[in-house]
Amino acid sequence: GETVRATLFPGDGIGPEIAESVKQVFNVAGVPIEWEEHYVGTEVDPRTESFLTWESLESVRRNKVGLKGPMATPIGKGHRSLNLTLRKELGLYANVRPCNSLPGYKTRYDDVNLVTIRENTEGEYSGLEHQVVRGVVESLKIITRQASLRVAEYAFHYAKANGRERVSAIHKANIMRKTDGLFLKCCREVAEKYPEIQYEEVIIDNCCMTLVKNPGLFDVLVMPNLYGDIISDLCAGLIGGLGLTPSCNIGEGGICLAEAVHGSAPDIAGKVS
Amino acid sequence: GETVRATLFPGDGIGPEIAESVKQVFNVAGVPIEWEEHYVGTEVDPRTESFLTWESLESVRRNKVGLKGPMATPIGKGHRSLNLTLRKELGLYANVRPCNSLPGYKTRYDDVNLVTIRENTEGEYSGLEHQVVRGVVESLKIITRQASLRVAEYAFHYAKANGRERVSAIHKANIMRKTDGLFLKCCREVAEKYPEIQYEEVIIDNCCMTLVKNPGLFDVLVMPNLYGDIISDLCAGLIGGLGLTPSCNIGEGGICLAEAVHGSAPDIAGKVS
Ligand SMILES: CC(C)[C@H](C(=O)O)[C@@H](O)C(=O)O
Ligand SMILES: CC(C)[C@H](C(=O)O)[C@@H](O)C(=O)O
Repeated sequence: GETVRATLFPGDGIGPEIAESVKQVFNVAGVPIEWEEHYVGTEVDPRTESFLTWESLESVRRNKVGLKGPMATPIGKGHRSLNLTLRKELGLYANVRPCNSLPGYKTRYDDVNLVTIRENTEGEYSGLEHQVVRGVVESLKIITRQASLRVAEYAFHYAKANGRERVSAIHKANIMRKTDGLFLKCCREVAEKYPEIQYEEVIIDNCCMTLVKNPGLFDVLVMPNLYGDIISDLCAGLIGGLGLTPSCNIGEGGICLAEAVHGSAPDIAGKVS
Repeated sequence: GETVRATLFPGDGIGPEIAESVKQVFNVAGVPIEWEEHYVGTEVDPRTESFLTWESLESVRRNKVGLKGPMATPIGKGHRSLNLTLRKELGLYANVRPCNSLPGYKTRYDDVNLVTIRENTEGEYSGLEHQVVRGVVESLKIITRQASLRVAEYAFHYAKANGRERVSAIHKANIMRKTDGLFLKCCREVAEKYPEIQYEEVIIDNCCMTLVKNPGLFDVLVMPNLYGDIISDLCAGLIGGLGLTPSCNIGEGGICLAEAVHGSAPDIAGKVS
């Protein structure tokens, strides 16, 4: 077949080592792929306001497909988190994490077969926070109709394309009636267009309890940003940890940026030769 | 001993039945207790803006100790959730949920022995929400120094009084730097006063993953409101469900209101005679 060009961010810590292994695997499997490697810079690029270079973002935009290792955001002021910059700059609106019990890797659970789909751009990650008076601070959770419809569309589309039966929208609309309420309203609108997919709404506390008691009850889960952050890690824990869960970020214009979700593990980097 | 007067809210659904059993248990155990029973009203009491009567709240304030069955908030406008009203009106600032594996009740886990302590009055439960423009809504998460210090004080005091070794503050301060940042700052301040208690900070997504992999690693957990809602249910799931976890709300002036955390289960109410 035709050679695909893909962007590769080896990342930090163990990142470059695992990136080497990934390249070997693709090689041995005979996948005709050509990697455009981009390392995170050591200075702030004013065009991205972060240590990510403009060229690396252009590479993903051009190739539409990329793979990223763990990135450790350097500590300090005047620059943005690498992960958040990628999500924002590339419009990575949905984070998809399939989570399946792996035969041969024993955990307390052997029947996990679900997919979490996380809204990846707004909600509790708005970055809007301020001190109201001394000793009183507030953070804004922003939910928009546009982003909610977009991730709901993606979830139902994904469910249908992958032969999944049900989409569960996870929320806390009994407390956050307006924000999570709008999210649910959007999910319901999209659900109407997919009569062949079952639709249900599950409150997040109840969802977490059910996940640890009986994860087999869930199929595709769609939810606002922070709930997705929490639940995708919980689900990874059910099957053994962050090293075992694939993750893909879907972005504007058909971008697909797959990523390692574990950390850069600087303590063990370079220890295997 | 002296007879204790305690307020009893039998609650809805199966509530009155389980309240009867509770009274029998206290009776047989020979506890000298006198119950002041209060049912939820059928009309809004303007003094509480909810279906809870002013007299029932006065009863808890006077007795300082109470027990509440499950309460189902009637649907409709112009009144507040019963649970939220209780928390607000009685200043129930800390929700304490011990969570222990029960010998004889088999689940996937047999080593759970932890306590979640939840800030119970602010955070994501502020009730402050509005539409910014059509299709854009926001909710305010409020964290105050006062409420954070109060719940942190309670957590460390509890840990010390109960021979616990460690307090873990659960947060997402890498994203909500100001709100969760203030919460952590308060926990650190209090931790300094308890050098005999270990203190650590755990990001909520990592906490949930660790809880499902190895809950035995945790001891006392303290956290803002919504995280407490989520994690306490997750922990209940580990040991078998909401019917197995005690819960106590600590309020201003030494109030202690214990509660059933499961629902009112109207589908099975009245089925056992
Ligand atoms: C590193 C952190 C900012 C990030 C998040 O909170 O989204 C991580 O937990 C994730 O899930 O990708
Ligand atoms: C019923 C609901 C409002 C409540 C909450 O979210 O606090 C419940 O989940 C709880 O944990 O007591």
